Amino acid sequence: MASPDPARLSLNTATIRKQWGLAEAIEGCARHGIRGISPWRDQVAGMGLAKAVEATRAAGLTVTGLCRGGFFSAPNWRDDNLRAIEEAHELGASCLVLVVGGMPQGSKDLAGARSQVRDGIGSILPHARAAGVPLAIEPLHPMQVERACVNTLEQALDLCDALDERKSGALGVAVDAYHLWWDPKLEAQIRRAGAERILAYHICDWLVPTRDLLNDRGMMGDGVIDLPRIRSWLEREGYAGFHEVEIFSERDWWKRDPDEVLTTCKERHAHFC
Amino acid sequence: MASPDPARLSLNTATIRKQWGLAEAIEGCARHGIRGISPWRDQVAGMGLAKAVEATRAAGLTVTGLCRGGFFSAPNWRDDNLRAIEEAHELGASCLVLVVGGMPQGSKDLAGARSQVRDGIGSILPHARAAGVPLAIEPLHPMQVERACVNTLEQALDLCDALDERKSGALGVAVDAYHLWWDPKLEAQIRRAGAERILAYHICDWLVPTRDLLNDRGMMGDGVIDLPRIRSWLEREGYAGFHEVEIFSERDWWKRDPDEVLTTCKERHAHFC
Repeated sequence: MASPDPARLSLNTATIRKQWGLAEAIEGCARHGIRGISPWRDQVAGMGLAKAVEATRAAGLTVTGLCRGGFFSAPNWRDDNLRAIEEAHELGASCLVLVVGGMPQGSKDLAGARSQVRDGIGSILPHARAAGVPLAIEPLHPMQVERACVNTLEQALDLCDALDERKSGALGVAVDAYHLWWDPKLEAQIRRAGAERILAYHICDWLVPTRDLLNDRGMMGDGVIDLPRIRSWLEREGYAGFHEVEIFSERDWWKRDPDEVLTTCKERHAHFC
Repeated sequence: MASPDPARLSLNTATIRKQWGLAEAIEGCARHGIRGISPWRDQVAGMGLAKAVEATRAAGLTVTGLCRGGFFSAPNWRDDNLRAIEEAHELGASCLVLVVGGMPQGSKDLAGARSQVRDGIGSILPHARAAGVPLAIEPLHPMQVERACVNTLEQALDLCDALDERKSGALGVAVDAYHLWWDPKLEAQIRRAGAERILAYHICDWLVPTRDLLNDRGMMGDGVIDLPRIRSWLEREGYAGFHEVEIFSERDWWKRDPDEVLTTCKERHAHFC
């Protein structure tokens, strides 16, 4: 299979969040010729929203997503999500990524948490639509069900179909290879999604062994995910968006020189994605 | 919901494997009035098969499963599985639990591994049927896809339907609450399985936070799984088999007095299952 277009590479700033603030990350992307960036809200706040907007524009970067909205079990979920939509609008982000949240502390009611998520998305969707900010539901790996009780692409697409039946473009999914690669139905559900529902594609790799449930992701090529195969499924549906590198790595990549991290992302994107 | 019948409690010997050999585990079950046991093959070998058969019969224990066959990517998978079937037959085990194995080292071909599993089960099924040993496919949590590339109940039941269309009783599933509780389709797939396909039910709990992908399971009641709800789904289908406690716990239960572990299993079974 042909190598991916280098112009499709995007940096999720979680990948170098221990080393760089957002201003440095924007400069780093410009310096390395990376054309997309996906910042986290705490980093945007740290830099200041207006400055972040200005700097990303000046660097000519596409903001491939804003991380994150969601967490519908938090007490202030509604206000927080409306602010996130506003920030995503200001940044011109391609989508607002939703990490939907899990069960409140002390609860064992997973089905109830899932109902709450559905209601929560339904509640903010009109605001997102009005602001022109597509909402991207991100299914998280089942081992992270506490952080996000949407855990398969099928489940995320069921939500999309329930809340946005006509595929208006306002609601879709973020397909993260790390979270979804294990799923025997992944290919079929990508087909079901189609390009209309796929708002973002996140990449990294699954290490063997994996030593931590949250922060032990691998650089592309260091693990066992067949990334070219997953990309081929997306491209077959007409997906032509970015490939966003998102690596949480306490033991390795968060400890390295961030310029080395970006160089490695580019190399690995060319050869293993 | 009513407490479960204490006579349905079974001990998977992994729960006390760091403290006890099989002979001690059999004595322990007898002493604590636990009526079922599910041994691992290395422990059976350690005791000697004939002695294990004799001791479990003398204690009047039901052997609720033999752990484990499977690992269809291992070079000797066929001989090993045929031996496991023979051992399960000798022990009068209710089923042989299949942990199906994952991708061979260096491979990224998950779909290929899954085909291999399907072919492997198909190959040993006639032998299991002839020996009167039902095979129980155990879907493992997606975070353990390296050990077992069957990761949802739906996927396991698809295999059952493909290989044993007429529901002969020779092929079914082991439903482990720890591996499956997160799945939004669990209730529906238990309904699909029906009592004919459910050969074993394993219990423990999901700790928050979970610190290890393999050996950090919790005692029932210490985590966030709604075990009575899952039991209700099984019982609605007519499942009347054992509830087998299987806890891999490096940091806690493997360090305790095994008599305390068994006492705790009984108490928690009564109140949290």
